[in-house]
Amino acid sequence: MRLKDLDTPCVVIDLDRAEANLARGQAVVAAAGLAMRPHVKTHKLPCMALRQIALGAVGVTCQKLGEAEAMADGGIGDIFVPYNILGATKLARLAALHARVVLSVTADSAQTVAGYAAAFTDPAHPLAVLVECDTGMGRCGVREADGALALARQIAAAPGLRFGGLMSYPARGQQSAADAWMAACVARIQAAGLAVPVVSLGGTPDLMAVGGLRAATEYRPGTYIYSDRMQVAFGHGTFDDCALTVRATVVSRPTPTRAVLDAGSKALAADLCSLPGHGHIPAYPQAVITSLSEEHAVVDLAPCAARPQIGEVVAVIPNHACVVSNLFDRVWLARGDAVTGAADVTSRGRLA
Amino acid sequence: MRLKDLDTPCVVIDLDRAEANLARGQAVVAAAGLAMRPHVKTHKLPCMALRQIALGAVGVTCQKLGEAEAMADGGIGDIFVPYNILGATKLARLAALHARVVLSVTADSAQTVAGYAAAFTDPAHPLAVLVECDTGMGRCGVREADGALALARQIAAAPGLRFGGLMSYPARGQQSAADAWMAACVARIQAAGLAVPVVSLGGTPDLMAVGGLRAATEYRPGTYIYSDRMQVAFGHGTFDDCALTVRATVVSRPTPTRAVLDAGSKALAADLCSLPGHGHIPAYPQAVITSLSEEHAVVDLAPCAARPQIGEVVAVIPNHACVVSNLFDRVWLARGDAVTGAADVTSRGRLA
Repeated sequence: MRLKDLDTPCVVIDLDRAEANLARGQAVVAAAGLAMRPHVKTHKLPCMALRQIALGAVGVTCQKLGEAEAMADGGIGDIFVPYNILGATKLARLAALHARVVLSVTADSAQTVAGYAAAFTDPAHPLAVLVECDTGMGRCGVREADGALALARQIAAAPGLRFGGLMSYPARGQQSAADAWMAACVARIQAAGLAVPVVSLGGTPDLMAVGGLRAATEYRPGTYIYSDRMQVAFGHGTFDDCALTVRATVVSRPTPTRAVLDAGSKALAADLCSLPGHGHIPAYPQAVITSLSEEHAVVDLAPCAARPQIGEVVAVIPNHACVVSNLFDRVWLARGDAVTGAADVTSRGRLA
Repeated sequence: MRLKDLDTPCVVIDLDRAEANLARGQAVVAAAGLAMRPHVKTHKLPCMALRQIALGAVGVTCQKLGEAEAMADGGIGDIFVPYNILGATKLARLAALHARVVLSVTADSAQTVAGYAAAFTDPAHPLAVLVECDTGMGRCGVREADGALALARQIAAAPGLRFGGLMSYPARGQQSAADAWMAACVARIQAAGLAVPVVSLGGTPDLMAVGGLRAATEYRPGTYIYSDRMQVAFGHGTFDDCALTVRATVVSRPTPTRAVLDAGSKALAADLCSLPGHGHIPAYPQAVITSLSEEHAVVDLAPCAARPQIGEVVAVIPNHACVVSNLFDRVWLARGDAVTGAADVTSRGRLA
């Protein structure tokens, strides 16, 4: 089967590009002396997670318990879920997962730690809990070393828990500051007599700068496997590195300068990511995807010399690859023009 | 089971509110003398489509062939797909669907009509094709009556097709102008000797103004079943009419004024819809959902007198209900506080 035989809209993963991206990312992280623990949110595919581990990753990162369960089902044996997991239902699922994989989680509050401590009580098989730190992102996380120390002590004091270290998701471009924040926090906790086994940072935007990290021991990039229009806008690689594309058909050409594609927000996702337009069309690089409705993309062809005809299929590099993976139940795998297979996106839609 | 027993994030449909919305919408359309053909994109549930038909709808509208197939599987017998359906794969599926339901589609180009004409050749069972008209939305559609007439003639001349009439999706607030556009177009086509059986308009934002329509014979509202924050912002009803909510847990309270929910863009969708913030929290009406990442909503509680604690579950009215339905494989059905069942969102993810 060839790309031209695929019905649209669909997602195609260019395996040559993805593999090159994986190898490059792994090499950079390894050269920095860090453990690689890629975030699966971008691909949501066990086959890709297994490839990441084959290349040297120590395990994977999943943002939701449901994603972690799907990865365990797919054969992944070491999973970090950097999330506050709350409530009896999820804690019971977490315990079941803990019984079959090497598992670690995070907490940023005493309430979250108390929940873990109540659900995990076996000193012979403790749950590793890292403290989430807010080093500038302004999302979750403790904001001061004293707060991290208090949680580390609470974790260490719980018989069924093990203090696993510190985790942060630095804001883009603030990785060095985050690393310095973590170094100070590590020193504070060590001074209190607790070891800090892991300091986990991550994020594709600053992946190429990992060589400068001092406190970090582990890195969690996600998007590096596929890249996307946002990463290219950040200055990371070119559109030729983008491994995930949405194939779409021109279904209407109402005016000389307008095309409409059969891929709307249900296929490309509505996230603008502070970019002009909703994706890049390599075959018509001047074209601007000016708006998305659920099933239509409106494309302004005014800047284009050549223009597509009705029925023509174009590839679109989306603004944000991760959210696209969540919209498709299955993706196609290809090398060049040859479709080599398909993969079920088993972590898709795992909301809880 | 009670609402409090549901794990988060999840979608809950308040059946009392949905049924009231359905009855009100049906009554308005019927009072205007129009056929009701609701758009299923909002709920994507055969059970709701069947209820719409029981209330008097003549059939349903589906934006994609895959959605139509799921609705046919769910027992719906009359389906309109207002889309240019192109390519051998989809036309074969369309033919299979035509064999089991009353089916109609649209075209806005000679190429689309030619595809239908080649795939449908039985004069005893013709495919109804309506001409899509752009009455101001700037998406698909012919832009002049002469263009509509040319397509109507092409359809009427094809042995296996039947000219079904005209369809438009008017821009919000331009429904009267769209109706006038359609009236002139109908006159032009009738003057050429062709009957125009159906003139289909639609859209929840102008649903309450259908009484003034003259050319229209059919109406296709979608969001009216659930309403959402965008509809309330448009001035249609209040938050008490919103039947779809996303239940989310407060997983972090990093500062006195910040909460983080376990519902991000994968649950609430990133569509801002020109609104400030990403949803409304009825229990904390002053709270502002300032940003979404995939698994987190960051909430600014500064304006709030009362503030939620870690572990508390809140309901969120999303900006746009339709795109939320596409993100969940299953929704919960409830009356007041009692969960009465669940429904599989069988039309979800039907991209092609």
